[in-house]
Amino acid sequence: MTLQTENNHLVIMAGGVGSRFWPMSTPELPKQFVDVLGCGKTLIQMTMERFAEVVPADNVWVVTNACYAAIVREQLPQMPADHILLEPCRRNTAPCIAYVSWRIKALDPKANIVVSPSDHIVMDVAEFRRVVSSSLQFASETDAIVTLGMKATRPETGYGYIQTDLSTPCARNREMYRVDSFREKPDLVTAQKYVAQNNFFWNAGIFVWNVGTIVNALRIYQPQLSEIFEQLLPYYGTEREQELIDERFPQCENISIDYAVLEKADEIFCFPASFGWSDLGTWGSLYDNKPRDAQGNVLIGNVECHDSHNCVVHCTQEKRVIIQGLEGYIVAEHDDALLICRLSEEQQIRKFTEGK
Amino acid sequence: MTLQTENNHLVIMAGGVGSRFWPMSTPELPKQFVDVLGCGKTLIQMTMERFAEVVPADNVWVVTNACYAAIVREQLPQMPADHILLEPCRRNTAPCIAYVSWRIKALDPKANIVVSPSDHIVMDVAEFRRVVSSSLQFASETDAIVTLGMKATRPETGYGYIQTDLSTPCARNREMYRVDSFREKPDLVTAQKYVAQNNFFWNAGIFVWNVGTIVNALRIYQPQLSEIFEQLLPYYGTEREQELIDERFPQCENISIDYAVLEKADEIFCFPASFGWSDLGTWGSLYDNKPRDAQGNVLIGNVECHDSHNCVVHCTQEKRVIIQGLEGYIVAEHDDALLICRLSEEQQIRKFTEGK
Repeated sequence: MTLQTENNHLVIMAGGVGSRFWPMSTPELPKQFVDVLGCGKTLIQMTMERFAEVVPADNVWVVTNACYAAIVREQLPQMPADHILLEPCRRNTAPCIAYVSWRIKALDPKANIVVSPSDHIVMDVAEFRRVVSSSLQFASETDAIVTLGMKATRPETGYGYIQTDLSTPCARNREMYRVDSFREKPDLVTAQKYVAQNNFFWNAGIFVWNVGTIVNALRIYQPQLSEIFEQLLPYYGTEREQELIDERFPQCENISIDYAVLEKADEIFCFPASFGWSDLGTWGSLYDNKPRDAQGNVLIGNVECHDSHNCVVHCTQEKRVIIQGLEGYIVAEHDDALLICRLSEEQQIRKFTEGK
Repeated sequence: MTLQTENNHLVIMAGGVGSRFWPMSTPELPKQFVDVLGCGKTLIQMTMERFAEVVPADNVWVVTNACYAAIVREQLPQMPADHILLEPCRRNTAPCIAYVSWRIKALDPKANIVVSPSDHIVMDVAEFRRVVSSSLQFASETDAIVTLGMKATRPETGYGYIQTDLSTPCARNREMYRVDSFREKPDLVTAQKYVAQNNFFWNAGIFVWNVGTIVNALRIYQPQLSEIFEQLLPYYGTEREQELIDERFPQCENISIDYAVLEKADEIFCFPASFGWSDLGTWGSLYDNKPRDAQGNVLIGNVECHDSHNCVVHCTQEKRVIIQGLEGYIVAEHDDALLICRLSEEQQIRKFTEGK
């Protein structure tokens, strides 16, 4: 079957600063722009690649902070440069999605959109493509908002959860289920309860909808926010767009799309999926998601280990690194910074780097 | 008393490669050329400074490998550039001392010479100057070979020892004692025996003699070696000097001055001294010789420690370093290399870097 893809659009949200991954990730070059896995590609490059055959390169959009424009142009030369939308300040996901939705609508009112973070990893790309294609097809035929739900394999307290009604699959796509509720990051006891049930899924922040659906939902649930981007309709794609965005965007409320729309709307579906997903939010998740050597080490860079176990080492290729006698540490070296920290204490990293 | 210093000469031996201090010390920039203590001066700069008021800058000589000529000129601009003698290859201390001795003799037959390593540290510089001045005075009046003996405060197996006859001080300088024998680096049991007696001192490799004494001793005990430098007498200070040294120096036997002369000669005196000396040969000795913070850490560079104790960290100022949860480690970062190693395992460092 040849899929119709010309109305499929990909929105990559790339405004994060990745502070928990310091010093590999810095405000100057956040982790989505870094070769975190040491595979020769940055996370945002792997993200775009993952959607090949599902979304044409001409329909790829990146929303990021103005200061990363040049980096995106350099790392994703295949996508149109004028599809890089620049936020003058950080305002969470709802303003970001509102901006790009109106921008796409002005160009392609029939657009079906998949929204994706820029810094996640996926092991089974073929299955990922199947799930996203199926969701885009579903979104093109309905007014549904689709979220991908990741099978919760452990009581993770760092993710939001989607409570799903598994009793009745959707008639039109029997892999889709109605969402009962979104749950914020739970405490450990609650997370354990969620995992014990089988109808809770991790919210991966991957959303699928057609452009009319998301624009209408924003109009209903976020009229003020919508007004801002509605008013800019005559200017999208013109020379004045950036100037007006720079003026209006800071007025947007700092609010996530989850709060702004998903928790309020009715027609929300979850597509439970398993394609080896990680948000790669922490050094521990990198450790969990890369093959380890016989000593349990994840080594990225020119690293030589002696008497060391269960470490994750991330250094640039230019550096010769010799490690001796370390058990369970993060060692990360990047340009002008070096971090050595117990993996078990990695929640302190953010604290170390605050206010610097 | 104003001391006569115009015939005092200082020879700094700076040909070492400091492999036990990797990666702070590299073959490209060995530790004598590095600001090891983080005080803004390199070890060779501190060495030259230590002899101020005892030896005029115009009488300072450095013998080093040809590849370090530019570094010495840059780091010691006060000394005459043509006093930097360049060995085309490494041949231990006897050829080095023979070369510089004939070279000085050609210029100043009345020279009194103190020979010093370039990479040691001294805490009490005033006492050091007193001891060296006194030794130079003694050497100017006698045909004695003087070695400085460091009070052995622990059974160190990394140093050679000087066995001294403490029964009768020298009549001319009552701080000087005859040397009975030189002992090579002992095993631990032997070292403990030495320390238990009070007539064994560490051989710091600091020698004092007048130029006639050392030249004569070399002629007697190392006639072949002496012949090489004797033949070059017409060329010292001329354009042909380097060319002839490059040709002849490789023919010299690889032998230390201790073996070549000191163990054979009669008129050897030891000046037992205490001025807070360390050869700074290992990370452990740096740890022992720098003030520690309340957590027992020696931190050189822009280093921030959390829950860490008894570490020695040496990084460049440009690097922001954050350490968490380390106990008793060396962390050393330098240009293109990073080492993390237990202090207790530092003897492995040489092995790590062999053949690279």
